[in-house]
Amino acid sequence: MIKKRLKTKLNNTPAQAIVTYYFIAIAISVILLRLPGVHKPGVHVNFIDSLFTAVSAVSVTGLSSINISETYSVFGYFMIILVLQLGGIGIMALGTFVWLISGKKIGLRERQLIMVDYNQSNLSGVVNLIKEIVKLLLLIQAIGALLLTLYFTQYYDSFKEALTHGIFTSVSATTNAGFDITGDSLIPYHHDYFVQIITIFLIIFGAIGFPVLIEVKEFLSNKNKNFRFSLFTRLTTITYAILLVFGTIMIYLLEMFHAFKGMPWHEKFFTALFHSVSTRSAGLTTIDVTQFHEGTNFLMSVLMFIGASPSSVGGGIRTTTFAIAVLFLINFSRGKDSVQIFHREVHLIDIFRAFAVIILAFAMVFIATILLSVTETNVPITSLIFEITSAFGTCGMSLGITGELSDIGKVIIMVLMFIGRVGLISFLYSIGGKSNKTKFHYPKERVIIG
Amino acid sequence: MIKKRLKTKLNNTPAQAIVTYYFIAIAISVILLRLPGVHKPGVHVNFIDSLFTAVSAVSVTGLSSINISETYSVFGYFMIILVLQLGGIGIMALGTFVWLISGKKIGLRERQLIMVDYNQSNLSGVVNLIKEIVKLLLLIQAIGALLLTLYFTQYYDSFKEALTHGIFTSVSATTNAGFDITGDSLIPYHHDYFVQIITIFLIIFGAIGFPVLIEVKEFLSNKNKNFRFSLFTRLTTITYAILLVFGTIMIYLLEMFHAFKGMPWHEKFFTALFHSVSTRSAGLTTIDVTQFHEGTNFLMSVLMFIGASPSSVGGGIRTTTFAIAVLFLINFSRGKDSVQIFHREVHLIDIFRAFAVIILAFAMVFIATILLSVTETNVPITSLIFEITSAFGTCGMSLGITGELSDIGKVIIMVLMFIGRVGLISFLYSIGGKSNKTKFHYPKERVIIG
Ligand SMILES: [K+]
Ligand SMILES: [K+]
Repeated sequence: MIKKRLKTKLNNTPAQAIVTYYFIAIAISVILLRLPGVHKPGVHVNFIDSLFTAVSAVSVTGLSSINISETYSVFGYFMIILVLQLGGIGIMALGTFVWLISGKKIGLRERQLIMVDYNQSNLSGVVNLIKEIVKLLLLIQAIGALLLTLYFTQYYDSFKEALTHGIFTSVSATTNAGFDITGDSLIPYHHDYFVQIITIFLIIFGAIGFPVLIEVKEFLSNKNKNFRFSLFTRLTTITYAILLVFGTIMIYLLEMFHAFKGMPWHEKFFTALFHSVSTRSAGLTTIDVTQFHEGTNFLMSVLMFIGASPSSVGGGIRTTTFAIAVLFLINFSRGKDSVQIFHREVHLIDIFRAFAVIILAFAMVFIATILLSVTETNVPITSLIFEITSAFGTCGMSLGITGELSDIGKVIIMVLMFIGRVGLISFLYSIGGKSNKTKFHYPKERVIIG
Repeated sequence: MIKKRLKTKLNNTPAQAIVTYYFIAIAISVILLRLPGVHKPGVHVNFIDSLFTAVSAVSVTGLSSINISETYSVFGYFMIILVLQLGGIGIMALGTFVWLISGKKIGLRERQLIMVDYNQSNLSGVVNLIKEIVKLLLLIQAIGALLLTLYFTQYYDSFKEALTHGIFTSVSATTNAGFDITGDSLIPYHHDYFVQIITIFLIIFGAIGFPVLIEVKEFLSNKNKNFRFSLFTRLTTITYAILLVFGTIMIYLLEMFHAFKGMPWHEKFFTALFHSVSTRSAGLTTIDVTQFHEGTNFLMSVLMFIGASPSSVGGGIRTTTFAIAVLFLINFSRGKDSVQIFHREVHLIDIFRAFAVIILAFAMVFIATILLSVTETNVPITSLIFEITSAFGTCGMSLGITGELSDIGKVIIMVLMFIGRVGLISFLYSIGGKSNKTKFHYPKERVIIG
């Protein structure tokens, strides 16, 4: 009985903590984004648009119903940067913290996250570790900002302007927010491979997942001779890499005679690579994505739906969910009764979680599509699905309809950004109420399937 | 070891039997549809179009790259009717037979299908039962044909013409084929509720599933006092009914101010009801579906994707798969570790099967969409998705693009109709090769999900 209650508590508390943090962060952000002086002189912003920007910034989605560069002052830009840190690094650190603490309490040595197994056996150790990682991410942002600022001096007249753009772009890339103050995403740097490479690295640092960064740090420190990467790190990193390569090849092939027509091969390659990386969750673009085939946009919708690593700055169903679904299908079609990979077996509960996330995600996209098809009668369904998956994947790319959305449409997209960022598992637990273990079992009976 | 081999055999043989039957049926159908005299005088049909019609007829999908009424002679119509019986009742009977036999061999009393539990304990008993049910379906078709013929005399000049239309419409409805010889589906009977009600009943008899018919027959015969409907029958019938009501309400609401504008309420209701029933797998229409909102077409795509009952004349992921996914999500979000419904517990293997079907189905739709977006560059993605889900759900509705498909496009749609009809589980087992039970287990390890 006590054990049961404890388990209930552990199932619910982390999810509620994350959801609560998120709500508080949105409230603070709305206040920050309505402070005097955040807007350019003479610009008026409706409350719903401030709220939309706040939700979009806290969820580091980057969808925007207003033009950021025309609306906000330089002071406003820095308020947005602050909100991005709250949403990006804040939720990522909190999520990882919660995962570590609940893992320690449950005493699951199987989790194999290194700090649980090795030298981080007390609470202050975990806190210190997370502090260190937050510092690391801020350092990455600072290096990115420095490099970009120096480089941007060739684009902008004043050093101050280059610095503003450098800091904003670096934070926007590392937190995978995808906001821009050029007014046109990274399209002005379409031919600038240096800026793109820096940005790609910053995006990947944010999207690859906090625990991965922790483990890589441990690995590089070389303190522990028995070190091995956890199943989670292997699974998410390899899935991330495969999706990145797959996306690049597909976008290249689908657009080489179309939107990329007339470009030299390296420009085609970089444009394909950049958008493959960016669909994971960043949302920055170096070309107008409405120029792509409808088929390419559909592919991008699916990639955004999958999203980034868990415990990262990204959204979507997450790489591990996708990986487990694919591995399950392969194993099942071979008649195996378990999911095995990298000499490890995936827990049944994690397979169940993956399924729950997938089913709920599809249901959400379906319901949102039907609702938006009613509220936004003049927008094509494919643009709606693109916008919906972009919100749920906290990617922030758009086929240009965000500004035209009705107020109800904006609310629906905000809800999707919220759920996408919190993560469906946390969302499920936070609405699901108390854990309710089955007390007795009915007789089992087979049914015909598919 | 012997037990293992036996199990392997039982896993693979039924699936292979169904796939083999299907291939033979297609071969016979192509021959039948190229016999002298099947075409109207002077009409030439390409081989790919004959093949397409054969696959569409055997899979009782009803998608057609040529106009049936303008292409085939009356003799041709009856050849099509023959093929529809091969595909509709043939595969349904075979599937049920295989399910009963393998259930008997495995000795799973849990399956609870009445003939396994009660008086059908030997092979000849099962064969007799299936013969009886095939007779029942042919009787239903005959009654439908009789009623429709008598009624059609008011539409057609000669009795012969009314008879041809009566028989063809009855068979097309009962087998859920959805072919028509009016050249315009059931649109000529848009105001004729009698024809629509008869058709709806015939469609439901075909789509509700063979085992359900068997059980209802047993129930009505009143021989067995301890009779209870199996979990399968309850689950599929209730899911079928809920989807039917849901579809009717949604189509009504989405179109009442649009395609249904100006109609009296009963006409709106009947049009909504008919298309909700028809998306399950029949594919007949009483209105041009291109007049619907894009949102309504998207909703219909989802309904077609779900499809009809297993062991019926329908396709898609099937009602039970959908039901188990939804029940799983509800149970999981409440913290339960099993799926319970109607005082029964669903087997883990059936939950796994449902997941495998869902993942594979989405993968298939995704791949088909990307491929068709390349081969059919001028067709909007929403029309492609509608066509793809229509083929996979063996529904046969189209936004009018079937005739314009490229040859590669036709092949892709044929593959989808094939897989949709065979069923993903059978398809998986037939390609999956030998069962390969895990011999040893790796250590388990948790990963972060969603
Ligand atoms: K983003
Ligand atoms: K059909």
